[in-house]
Amino acid sequence: MKLSHYFLKTAKTVSEDDTSISARLLKQGGFVRESVAGRYYFLPVGQRVQQKIMAIIKEEMDAAGAQEMLAPILHPLELWQETNRTNTTGFELMKVKDRRGGEFALGGTAEEMFVDLIRKFTISYRDLPFHLYQFSPKFRDELRARGGLLRVREFIMKDGYSFHADEEDFRREYEHMKGVYSRIFDRLGLQTTIVEADNGYIGGEYCHEFIVESDAGESRYFTTPDGSIAAHEDVARFRRNPANAGADMLPLQTIDQPAWVQTMEDNEKHYGKPTSHYLKNVVYRNMVTGQIVIATLTGDLQVNQTKLEQALKAVGQLEAATEEDLAKLGTKTGYVHSWGHAGAYCVGDIVLEQARNLIGGQKEEATDTINVNYGRDFTCDLIADIALAYEGAIAENGQQYAEKKGIEVGNVFQLGLHYSGKMKGAVYVDAEGKDQPFYMGCYGIGIGRTMAAVVEKHYDAKGIMWPESTAPFHVHLIALEGGFDDAEKLYRDMIADRIEVLYDDREKTAGEKFADADLIGIPVRMVVSKKTVEKGSVEIKKRGEPEAKLVPFSEAIAVIEGE
Amino acid sequence: MKLSHYFLKTAKTVSEDDTSISARLLKQGGFVRESVAGRYYFLPVGQRVQQKIMAIIKEEMDAAGAQEMLAPILHPLELWQETNRTNTTGFELMKVKDRRGGEFALGGTAEEMFVDLIRKFTISYRDLPFHLYQFSPKFRDELRARGGLLRVREFIMKDGYSFHADEEDFRREYEHMKGVYSRIFDRLGLQTTIVEADNGYIGGEYCHEFIVESDAGESRYFTTPDGSIAAHEDVARFRRNPANAGADMLPLQTIDQPAWVQTMEDNEKHYGKPTSHYLKNVVYRNMVTGQIVIATLTGDLQVNQTKLEQALKAVGQLEAATEEDLAKLGTKTGYVHSWGHAGAYCVGDIVLEQARNLIGGQKEEATDTINVNYGRDFTCDLIADIALAYEGAIAENGQQYAEKKGIEVGNVFQLGLHYSGKMKGAVYVDAEGKDQPFYMGCYGIGIGRTMAAVVEKHYDAKGIMWPESTAPFHVHLIALEGGFDDAEKLYRDMIADRIEVLYDDREKTAGEKFADADLIGIPVRMVVSKKTVEKGSVEIKKRGEPEAKLVPFSEAIAVIEGE
Repeated sequence: MKLSHYFLKTAKTVSEDDTSISARLLKQGGFVRESVAGRYYFLPVGQRVQQKIMAIIKEEMDAAGAQEMLAPILHPLELWQETNRTNTTGFELMKVKDRRGGEFALGGTAEEMFVDLIRKFTISYRDLPFHLYQFSPKFRDELRARGGLLRVREFIMKDGYSFHADEEDFRREYEHMKGVYSRIFDRLGLQTTIVEADNGYIGGEYCHEFIVESDAGESRYFTTPDGSIAAHEDVARFRRNPANAGADMLPLQTIDQPAWVQTMEDNEKHYGKPTSHYLKNVVYRNMVTGQIVIATLTGDLQVNQTKLEQALKAVGQLEAATEEDLAKLGTKTGYVHSWGHAGAYCVGDIVLEQARNLIGGQKEEATDTINVNYGRDFTCDLIADIALAYEGAIAENGQQYAEKKGIEVGNVFQLGLHYSGKMKGAVYVDAEGKDQPFYMGCYGIGIGRTMAAVVEKHYDAKGIMWPESTAPFHVHLIALEGGFDDAEKLYRDMIADRIEVLYDDREKTAGEKFADADLIGIPVRMVVSKKTVEKGSVEIKKRGEPEAKLVPFSEAIAVIEGE
Repeated sequence: MKLSHYFLKTAKTVSEDDTSISARLLKQGGFVRESVAGRYYFLPVGQRVQQKIMAIIKEEMDAAGAQEMLAPILHPLELWQETNRTNTTGFELMKVKDRRGGEFALGGTAEEMFVDLIRKFTISYRDLPFHLYQFSPKFRDELRARGGLLRVREFIMKDGYSFHADEEDFRREYEHMKGVYSRIFDRLGLQTTIVEADNGYIGGEYCHEFIVESDAGESRYFTTPDGSIAAHEDVARFRRNPANAGADMLPLQTIDQPAWVQTMEDNEKHYGKPTSHYLKNVVYRNMVTGQIVIATLTGDLQVNQTKLEQALKAVGQLEAATEEDLAKLGTKTGYVHSWGHAGAYCVGDIVLEQARNLIGGQKEEATDTINVNYGRDFTCDLIADIALAYEGAIAENGQQYAEKKGIEVGNVFQLGLHYSGKMKGAVYVDAEGKDQPFYMGCYGIGIGRTMAAVVEKHYDAKGIMWPESTAPFHVHLIALEGGFDDAEKLYRDMIADRIEVLYDDREKTAGEKFADADLIGIPVRMVVSKKTVEKGSVEIKKRGEPEAKLVPFSEAIAVIEGE
């Protein structure tokens, strides 16, 4: 491809809004351009990268026995109603009506569509298992888009759905796909950690995310030094550090307390004891049911809202209570009790069952309670793991957690009988001729986000450094003054040899051409100039290496092909 | 691919709703399945065909210098407002709102999106011309879907947009693309006619459709025997056959006429003259403005609504007037005058200027007018070509039109300055440093409809007969009793040789397997059975040919590859 005719326009600067390295470099390098927030054009050089990524995924998925197909983009809304997913307000579902009144969802995933397809056929146990996938646009009505391709409202996803007779067969495929995904990301130049995660709005019981460690990512997760545990903050279990564990329960007392003691810090100052000794209450409101939820734990812990929602089976339904909500409970910030608020539903963290003689619990203007003990002095409607893990917390294997940030590029979900149970006719005929629901899994990779992750892991101060597997071209050929004729010949020879080459034949300075080459980040740079022509050679330099080498003109292509 | 593990389920029968050959065969053969009317799943074997079609298009488009990219699917509605296309009611545009109130169109084409992208950059005259294209889902909110993939509400389109400094450069690309498209369709096994067509809601001044002749198609067009003219019915110009051409104008008379004379047939019976001698009026209402439009021509002609809308610059805005509309004009069916209806806008066909001494024009209960002459006795607000051509009509080249039906698989449009004129900042900088609007063209191919057209042209009573270029697999290998081991070996050898093979390894009867092979329509069938094994051979049969031939087992692959 000749750059003089290629729609590739690099930019010297980008706006401050482009917050991540990949957002800046992909825009500067002419790979993508934003339409409106969170919706991107993939320009020709960017589309080439996206296609390389998809080709590798397809190769590995096909080799793994999965079969590519394509479902419609507009999902009949009644399918989403059948599985009750239109009521999951946490999921950012866009809806559209046609002029005959038909309603459709612009899906973020396509479980219902695949199940609805399968149930149109008679499936025998002999047909199972099978795994169908597609590359298809997905939509998420995110409140905030950010980080370029890292969090968008529209993107291509490889989404796959597998159908099995039972859990055992599914588990085989689940483990199989973990290997396939790891290999895909390896080939793309991404080292991933397989992280236990929350299944969110997808349904099912367990799932794992493939995360590329990066400060640009939004996923917080925890790992232990031996690598045996990797868990997203939304599911990471950890041992509590309860106050006065095993101590005798002292008599409950109401004592005087100055009015200035309001926050955890005030408590520490006043009582001289660490934060784990105080009761703490955080109030939420269920957006769907209107119910007020009080989460109770100790002062050393934070509520993890996802864990809390899972415990309540109210995924995506909670938001922080307002001062108005508190007023309805007859209280205000700083004065929420651990008991006694009629109408509120109380969820206590498991630490309550281990700690003894806590401080706080029923704070009034000038008094508070001490030696509070769960079970004796108050109970919650539910005890669950609702606390956020933290750097240094002790994992279930006894090791200390390290906290990490990363980019979720893929995920695998057990769906079990979640969809086949809800969708009528989603059955296969077993060996005895009886209908049985499918056991299902699903598997996703976000293409644009994967592309961004590759950039986040492969760049330097000058620009992108594409790994060979995702590079838009293999060779970036630059002609400088006195080298255009030879470069043109080299270009033609490389095209004939099916070498993917971007040829900078523009009338620009050497400085501009070199800067663009570094920014665009193609693995091999070749320069033909008056100087190299005089020596009967070309200059070859790899993007990552500091030094160029001179290679005889006649050997240039062989050198490229030998690499 | 082994059929026992492939999600390919053929059907013996299909419903009566599947009106076209391609709708029936593609469903029966397991290629596609409807989600809801007009929205299709492409099953694995169907997706393979779709991908083959796209690969050929991509190859030819890239070779022609066009560059693939990808635009977002949701188009900001303000772009469509900028070009006033949201008001074109004839275009079936779906709209969707995000939760922040942003409005988007689900586009049927993407002119605005590409122009909006280009104007984000500074474009120099040196950058021109360029041609960008994408494969991307398109949406049409059709009132009626029909014919399987022939008229759908959602489909993948290859849509391309070219940008030029001036019309001369555009015309070069326009002719160039006509050749590229012809080659693409040739390679796909489709003979196409390049037909002059109406530009509809796209804008611009001229366009051509690529039509595959077929009774299953919805496009009616006319050709002349020498092939020099091919025109869609919406634009086909033809010589009128005016009554009393060149005769002197006789005095206008009001004469008695029996009340039973209402229709054209009544007129012929009463006056004994052919239909070209009578005035005829057809009434429409503009759905946008409410204006009543009377189209006036002679009894031998039909109004072509598209021509009429173009003449009125009211594309997609007319519908037939109701009896209520006529009542408002003070008239009723059978009594519409050629003059004298206050408030109505009259459009006359060009035949009015050529015919003399016409009958009708101001029919009352017991009278009518004769010797009516346009210009002397009445005038219209506008004279234009608004009549439908017909089989046998004389074209501008003096030859007789033949009427044809076909499937529109592609189109090329001159857009001129239509979009760059309406969208602010859609300019390039010319050699003098001045801003100039782009001169544009656009080019589309519907992938699904092309797939259906291939089937409409390549089938027999037993099923589809894919041309090699679009076949999902090259070889359909069938193992019968006693042949499974040898077939398995052959299958592995073909895979190793990268031959695309579908291997029917199922436990089914020979009859079932042969019927499926004929239905699915893969070009080469190989059978390995006890009988062929005993002879050390395999049976090879081409889908179109009646006879199979026996080939030594060891030579089978060479024979396949040699073809």
